[in-house]
Amino acid sequence: MKIQLASSYGFCFGVKRAIKIAEEHQGSKTYGPLIHNKDEINRLKEGFDIGLAEKLDDVTPEDSVVIRTHGIPKDELSQLKAQENPIIDATCPYVTTPQNIVANMSEKGYSIVIFGDKEHPEIKGVVSYAKDLRNAFIVRHEDELEGLPILSKVAVVAQTTRKPEDFLKIVNALILNHKEVRVFNTICNATFENQDAAAELARDADVMIVIGGKHSSNTKQLHSICKSYCDDSYLVENESELDPQWFGGKKLCGISAGASTPDWIVQNVIDKIEALK
Amino acid sequence: MKIQLASSYGFCFGVKRAIKIAEEHQGSKTYGPLIHNKDEINRLKEGFDIGLAEKLDDVTPEDSVVIRTHGIPKDELSQLKAQENPIIDATCPYVTTPQNIVANMSEKGYSIVIFGDKEHPEIKGVVSYAKDLRNAFIVRHEDELEGLPILSKVAVVAQTTRKPEDFLKIVNALILNHKEVRVFNTICNATFENQDAAAELARDADVMIVIGGKHSSNTKQLHSICKSYCDDSYLVENESELDPQWFGGKKLCGISAGASTPDWIVQNVIDKIEALK
Repeated sequence: MKIQLASSYGFCFGVKRAIKIAEEHQGSKTYGPLIHNKDEINRLKEGFDIGLAEKLDDVTPEDSVVIRTHGIPKDELSQLKAQENPIIDATCPYVTTPQNIVANMSEKGYSIVIFGDKEHPEIKGVVSYAKDLRNAFIVRHEDELEGLPILSKVAVVAQTTRKPEDFLKIVNALILNHKEVRVFNTICNATFENQDAAAELARDADVMIVIGGKHSSNTKQLHSICKSYCDDSYLVENESELDPQWFGGKKLCGISAGASTPDWIVQNVIDKIEALK
Repeated sequence: MKIQLASSYGFCFGVKRAIKIAEEHQGSKTYGPLIHNKDEINRLKEGFDIGLAEKLDDVTPEDSVVIRTHGIPKDELSQLKAQENPIIDATCPYVTTPQNIVANMSEKGYSIVIFGDKEHPEIKGVVSYAKDLRNAFIVRHEDELEGLPILSKVAVVAQTTRKPEDFLKIVNALILNHKEVRVFNTICNATFENQDAAAELARDADVMIVIGGKHSSNTKQLHSICKSYCDDSYLVENESELDPQWFGGKKLCGISAGASTPDWIVQNVIDKIEALK
């Protein structure tokens, strides 16, 4: 069996940047997991003494606080600043953009529509920048727009890891019903590059392994894209989850990895599959 | 054969308003044809002495000038004002809106994309409000966007009589390639109401007569929609163009009329078809 990596996979710009920032601030605490990858977070803990504060109570006065890649809600950031903790901002610049857009547009009286998952930390952060939360709406599907009290002037942003086709469906529904729709395409290209490369490889592969955190939005999407081309597509967090039965009689094993998956985990998975052959 | 009118047809708000304005200014001249209907223009000429200036040279110093429903280019309006001709503005308010949007958005540094026909008087007027014509682009199809030097911030408007589905295709292509797309849905509902009603009737009819000017964008679209449901759909300007052969063996004759078609022409057409039965 041949093992082949997708032509683009793994860490995006924002994640690489956040890890570099964390490594440069040994002994600090991240506020929420820095990225959606437990193994990498353990590596930062063991190698750089990077702690984890899950909530404000976990932050002690002497802590330097690293803001996670996905950003955090505005009021929590204000509280950290009020406590005078040193703040190191590792928010991905592609996430800072929709935060700023939401702040600006809601200040100018636009209704805000955010295409994304309201439980995702990125979106919890982005929506918190709306001036009036009663005029900011998070939707995952155009059907959810029905009946919302959206004004005639509306600004739209997207979670950085969403699919453009789905974003357009939401935007189109808005355009047909509102006078002005100000569309900010905040979807990040890095996600698509990994997705396109995974799809291309999944077309040829008879087994696909997607490596990434089970809570990672972009990893789950990668897995779903691979599954649509290759039935035997599996999502694993690391090499310990590989099942030897997946590879029996296969000719081409494709590998992709989510934007929060470090190269060393990808290498461990490849080594393990090699050993199983 | 039964004759049935579409549940919505004929004059829109802007046309009714323009004719009323013209009738109230007996002896004035319209600058360009007031609406796209020769017969109604003749009626205004005969009944209200409304003249027609095709170009600036046709306007004499003593003329009161009625601005046509479709609006006119900004520089021609300025020239008329400079000549101190009394101006009576019959531009449809739904056309003034995109004119103002183009002026505002180009002033703010946005590229302008106009979905419409560059030969149509409405669009000649709308585009003239762009601050810099090198940064304003008129397209009828998303393919025409390729290679245009459109900035990352772009504002989009549509000719009032265009189909929303086609507008969305242009908008979607822009969203995928530009950071901010400010979409102003300037398509007029009156057009859709006539279109939806014509489509509904054309489904049941075995012959459809669409009455309107052959230069009228919305009439041509009505005709094309009817044709997609009923092969025997014909576009006529008035009753003189009816061909008796169209009605042989038919059971239901549907009738629709463009937004510039007066009721008296619709009635003449119905009377003639009744006589042919």
